Amino acid sequence: MTPTALSDELLSRFAAIVGEKNALRDASDLAPHLVENRGLYHGNSPLLLRPSTTEEVAAIMKLASETGTAIVPQTGNTGLVGGQTPRNGGSDVILSLERMNKVRDIDPVANVIVVDGGCILDEVHKAAEKVERMFPLSLGSQGSCRIGGNLATNAGGTAVLAYGNMRQLCLGLEVVLPTGEIWNGLRRLKKDNTGYDLRDLFIGSEGTLGIITGAVLKLFPKPLGHQVAFAGLNSPADALKLFERASTLCGSALTGFELMPRIGVEFTAKHIPGVRDPLETPHAWYALIDISSSNSADTAQTMVETLLEQGFEAGIFQDAVIASSEAQRQALWHMRESMSDAQKPEGGSIKHDVSVPVSHVPAFMDEAERAVMSAIPDARICAFGHLGDGNIHYNISQPVGADKNAFLAQWKEINEIVHGIVLSFGGSISAEHGIGQLKRDELAAIRPAIEMDLMRRIKTAFDPAGIMNPGKVVAS
Amino acid sequence: MTPTALSDELLSRFAAIVGEKNALRDASDLAPHLVENRGLYHGNSPLLLRPSTTEEVAAIMKLASETGTAIVPQTGNTGLVGGQTPRNGGSDVILSLERMNKVRDIDPVANVIVVDGGCILDEVHKAAEKVERMFPLSLGSQGSCRIGGNLATNAGGTAVLAYGNMRQLCLGLEVVLPTGEIWNGLRRLKKDNTGYDLRDLFIGSEGTLGIITGAVLKLFPKPLGHQVAFAGLNSPADALKLFERASTLCGSALTGFELMPRIGVEFTAKHIPGVRDPLETPHAWYALIDISSSNSADTAQTMVETLLEQGFEAGIFQDAVIASSEAQRQALWHMRESMSDAQKPEGGSIKHDVSVPVSHVPAFMDEAERAVMSAIPDARICAFGHLGDGNIHYNISQPVGADKNAFLAQWKEINEIVHGIVLSFGGSISAEHGIGQLKRDELAAIRPAIEMDLMRRIKTAFDPAGIMNPGKVVAS
Repeated sequence: MTPTALSDELLSRFAAIVGEKNALRDASDLAPHLVENRGLYHGNSPLLLRPSTTEEVAAIMKLASETGTAIVPQTGNTGLVGGQTPRNGGSDVILSLERMNKVRDIDPVANVIVVDGGCILDEVHKAAEKVERMFPLSLGSQGSCRIGGNLATNAGGTAVLAYGNMRQLCLGLEVVLPTGEIWNGLRRLKKDNTGYDLRDLFIGSEGTLGIITGAVLKLFPKPLGHQVAFAGLNSPADALKLFERASTLCGSALTGFELMPRIGVEFTAKHIPGVRDPLETPHAWYALIDISSSNSADTAQTMVETLLEQGFEAGIFQDAVIASSEAQRQALWHMRESMSDAQKPEGGSIKHDVSVPVSHVPAFMDEAERAVMSAIPDARICAFGHLGDGNIHYNISQPVGADKNAFLAQWKEINEIVHGIVLSFGGSISAEHGIGQLKRDELAAIRPAIEMDLMRRIKTAFDPAGIMNPGKVVAS
Repeated sequence: MTPTALSDELLSRFAAIVGEKNALRDASDLAPHLVENRGLYHGNSPLLLRPSTTEEVAAIMKLASETGTAIVPQTGNTGLVGGQTPRNGGSDVILSLERMNKVRDIDPVANVIVVDGGCILDEVHKAAEKVERMFPLSLGSQGSCRIGGNLATNAGGTAVLAYGNMRQLCLGLEVVLPTGEIWNGLRRLKKDNTGYDLRDLFIGSEGTLGIITGAVLKLFPKPLGHQVAFAGLNSPADALKLFERASTLCGSALTGFELMPRIGVEFTAKHIPGVRDPLETPHAWYALIDISSSNSADTAQTMVETLLEQGFEAGIFQDAVIASSEAQRQALWHMRESMSDAQKPEGGSIKHDVSVPVSHVPAFMDEAERAVMSAIPDARICAFGHLGDGNIHYNISQPVGADKNAFLAQWKEINEIVHGIVLSFGGSISAEHGIGQLKRDELAAIRPAIEMDLMRRIKTAFDPAGIMNPGKVVAS
């Protein structure tokens, strides 16, 4: 579908659904919604609608469907692949869920919370906290990202190891379809084998099959014990050994196992206020280990002490610390979560969000390093991430003193090199950020034709007019 | 699509793909494949094909697609809703995966096993055992059910509480599509956000969207400690209280929490060789509690002892035992797993496989009992199941001395009563057995029109010719 300009008359019909106050048309109001966080995608749009109810969303989609108007759903605008950015051409209307931000219901006995699609992730954390429960999804952007987007991208983060992705944290959905019909699938059941799995089809479809306006999410008991350790290591292979011991020792009490390189620790210590290297001597690699125990504070403490004792005796690491207070635990996590931001003052960064089977992480890291250093000899590889999930944010900072734009011009070439190695290990070119616009054509190039064909058939079956976030995930 | 008879010439073309030896046409060979376990569904078929490779399955589907021939996939034929039974009319060809029964690969470091769709569940257990690992799916039919069917029905069983349904135990699939194309989605990744979730769409689709010919399944470390306890209780409400304590105390080490009524224990003690009531005095209800610890044998023992101590002190139960040997643990599980078989000598049984939110189980049990006893005053309710998942097999044995056929004639009426109560609690009319033929029309009656419409759109998109297990899940 080629974008065409929308008439004023049509824009006014859309505006009438939500009221003029909630129909933004001024360039300055629209500006923050036309670009995503990394600045990789800029689009434009004549209109942003802010509905306040599921019925208003349905009315918008009904009109869009009748008039062939493209709709781009947006929640916190924190996505990293251009999935929430309108296309150029000025024909995409943005539908923001920011006013649909309520907690609808919370039941600490049944351990569920029901929220609007525009509910901010941190608000879900707070609501759970108030009833002595915990919602485990944990992301750097949790102060601004919203549940609808978290579900649409099947968000991951730092607690996936124990609790799973957003897919595993969701029991039911309410979705407005491209036609304007409402699917009420707000179920609260652990087991339900009644027909095709529509819920998991909408989760991860990045707003291309419908708009997630409500969700039933799982809550968990608050852990009674929480320990964080930080260990200096020689290599990713040693980190894997430590992960395997931690996994055996702690089972599902192992809630996070993050890998960081020396250069990442240096960047954060240099650029992020309050961060310092917690160990006295430098190490090539670091592991951040998070243990949460549901039965007692002692259990988590015994586990972390036993793990470090075992790891030290087996010669897996040379030095390690256990955070002795909540402030220290937060400081260690703050270092990890600032790793991407700390790269910014160092110039351009070519990024990858990849996964390989966990046992292949060390071999992948070796091969990728050789290939990248051979392409860009002074590149500064800052590869960090969720080792326990096999998910590495394989970021590459520009050589010191290099021209930023010239470096970034190699993005595609370097992506091809790294992704080629990822695929040779049976890995994924998008472990948690999704496809959006950024990886749409690459996905089509690497996947079997039948797989892309099945996706297109689903897209056509759900969105025959091609109006639902067009140009994302699969080509229109 | 109205079934029409198939020509001998066409049957011979199908037979040529697998060889005459693997193309069964004799009535006596076909007979066991035309009826399911409970005898609720009888169908017929002129031909059963036993391919030995994915390519042969693909060739069969290609021919079926070209000639509009209906294909019914069958694995262990242990399904309970007629999903694997051919229709009447003699136009359905059965495709059995029984010869595709190999373990393709096993990797204990990465904790994955890759198997054919026809691999028997117990063979997966044994293969895992050999490398000191565990595959948690546990079902009464595990000696004969096969992985393709377990995935097609998203099988549940007694370890769902800790490990999830089949959906949660599967990383990747190989599927032959109705068109004969092969989708290779045999990925081994924990995190992979690359497009629509085809895997979860095929899982639970009961062979109506394609044939699952291979799968990557998750393995787990073998638990170091295993304890089973059995407690006598006054009511499902007390069982729920005990479950909540067990859940808090044990976290993911709580691997099973089953509820049984007095009458079920009596039936098993009477009809199942070797089963006896483990407690000295009778109780109205019983809980079977299974605790597996990954870090040490002591942990499981401490947990079970603490739980019983707490439960006794809080007055939740009156009497309980802890199994003191592997033989005793198996005996307790044998009682639970024989509960359905033990009903058979007692005459007809009207069955339900329902779920409600866990916290509503006691209220559901009260209401359902009142309604059923009012409809059939001497009915013997034998409601048991996976309390921790909110999943109750709400079975009703006929009154003593009643006419079996007259009793079973009330199946539909009683289903409507019980399912009405289930739905009033936001529950599911099929928690784990699926839809098949048995609940197809009922599903369409209780679900919103848009939900059934979306399912039909998916069905049409994947199977435009309507040849893939027609008449199951959604009407053709």
